Amino acid sequence: MGELELIAGIERLLRRRSDRVMRSLGEDAAVVRARPVAVTSLDTVVERVHFERATHSPRDIGHKALATSLSDLAAMGADPGEAYIGLGIPEDVSEDDALEIMSGAEALAEGADTTIAGGDVVGSPTLFVTATVVGWAESEEALVTRDGAQPGDLVGVSGELGGAGAGLLLLRGLEAELPERDHEALLARHRRPAPRLRLGRGLAGAGAAAMIDLSDGIASDAAHLADRSGVGLEIDADLLPIASGVAAAAAAAQRNPLELAAASGDDYELLFTIEPERREAAARAGRDAGVQITFIGRVIEGECLSLVSRGRPLAIRGYTHLEPA
Amino acid sequence: MGELELIAGIERLLRRRSDRVMRSLGEDAAVVRARPVAVTSLDTVVERVHFERATHSPRDIGHKALATSLSDLAAMGADPGEAYIGLGIPEDVSEDDALEIMSGAEALAEGADTTIAGGDVVGSPTLFVTATVVGWAESEEALVTRDGAQPGDLVGVSGELGGAGAGLLLLRGLEAELPERDHEALLARHRRPAPRLRLGRGLAGAGAAAMIDLSDGIASDAAHLADRSGVGLEIDADLLPIASGVAAAAAAAQRNPLELAAASGDDYELLFTIEPERREAAARAGRDAGVQITFIGRVIEGECLSLVSRGRPLAIRGYTHLEPA
Repeated sequence: MGELELIAGIERLLRRRSDRVMRSLGEDAAVVRARPVAVTSLDTVVERVHFERATHSPRDIGHKALATSLSDLAAMGADPGEAYIGLGIPEDVSEDDALEIMSGAEALAEGADTTIAGGDVVGSPTLFVTATVVGWAESEEALVTRDGAQPGDLVGVSGELGGAGAGLLLLRGLEAELPERDHEALLARHRRPAPRLRLGRGLAGAGAAAMIDLSDGIASDAAHLADRSGVGLEIDADLLPIASGVAAAAAAAQRNPLELAAASGDDYELLFTIEPERREAAARAGRDAGVQITFIGRVIEGECLSLVSRGRPLAIRGYTHLEPA
Repeated sequence: MGELELIAGIERLLRRRSDRVMRSLGEDAAVVRARPVAVTSLDTVVERVHFERATHSPRDIGHKALATSLSDLAAMGADPGEAYIGLGIPEDVSEDDALEIMSGAEALAEGADTTIAGGDVVGSPTLFVTATVVGWAESEEALVTRDGAQPGDLVGVSGELGGAGAGLLLLRGLEAELPERDHEALLARHRRPAPRLRLGRGLAGAGAAAMIDLSDGIASDAAHLADRSGVGLEIDADLLPIASGVAAAAAAAQRNPLELAAASGDDYELLFTIEPERREAAARAGRDAGVQITFIGRVIEGECLSLVSRGRPLAIRGYTHLEPA
């Protein structure tokens, strides 16, 4: 693979989506006219850790790398801006496949109003993709952090949970009795997560007090939010919006569907807290973004995350795994 | 290795160096008060491609990853700002060694007035480090790009060349008759390159017309600059400032020292062009930064990079390797 030819090919397939991007490819660094506040996150996906070439197309890989980073911008309520993609390419990955990885990222970038403005390509024994994303806001106050939750707030979650975890089981060969539509949807949940950028901005505008994206599962991520805010969270596990097909996949895997919904990762939905009087504003933000919002619990004093199912508390402290009743 | 414990350890060793950094670790994304223009670059170093664990300490690896990115900011004349570090950590790398990698990056960040404001840690079969750096400027005009070279400009280069290439030969076991001091200096050139941030800003202020950092060697990088500027460059190879010890290392390796000076990478010096009447301002920028400046040629019409040695032209077009006379 000729590195310079590949870089030239990548430059041809990328589009500039903002006139704030003054210089991008072909320079030592990209030059971007800034807005008042920059919001930056870096995420990496690695072969055999986050994806397998046998089950993920090159486009899936590029999509996933960028989606995981953009989801962090969504969780802050930032406007998307630029992305910088680093590719580590083994010798047995063709130039065409490397370009397909970038095409997957570029297709997501297009829908997310993001310009891929730079990056690099290096040889590597292991395939990996790093995506650094930069979003923007007019002020710090326009953003939502993890530490603003207050006792009395409602806890809400977007979309449906457990789909990515069930999709991963299916990708790994689980045989489950599922309608074809559910099967495909679960696979897509794992392969092509959708960063909730529009919803994140809407929830920020609606006055969300704290927010985090669900990359590791609600059991871990809600604990992070509780920890950073210095509060407790009481979540009714029976209210978790479980994706269609998750129950059947869980049954086939002899696992509790709640475990998939609460303790499997990669759903990239948003978990947030908000004052009860702003509940309708949050629901409206969901409708505007075309994403369902479900209220699943409330913020309490303390520092414990508790998930309750059928009235029985499942106390989880810190980052330990969910142990279903 | 516990990923969350490692992240907590990393958070403990990092320092915030600017009150523009409002949120950094512990959030989904870092939040930084912007200046008018953002300058962003991403670089990755990979085990067995850019370094070997047998010859590079963890601190060397962290230093090198960040240095290669910061060098891109130097080449634009940008003020350094923040860095975001992604670590891909194999199972046989201890938590202590992972922290040492970050300590190497943090030590360089301290000297470079840079705040490491975020990043991630992932498992990976191959050790790699990605560094995204964000620098800042007051306006686009304050920056120097690759495309501003004009016929008649002088071509200058900072520091000394060939040291990193010779250092790599020594790391790989070359036995050369060298004073101990030269030997150590050449190894350090390869392991701990120094991004020329202060010099880059000084040259921008002095009115440099075009600039690039020498990551691949002058034969490749000067060709990039010529290509982007639509000009030719005529460089007198006999004027290249060759680092002490390179001649002896080249002799031991039965190679031409000019080849190490012009066609081996990782020196991370700056190559720039500037109008002849600004020559003294460039020299002054060098003195202010404590880095030697050498004028090695001039910009001409055309699109060819030619290196001349002892009056004999060595025409090099594009990215082909230097073929010494």
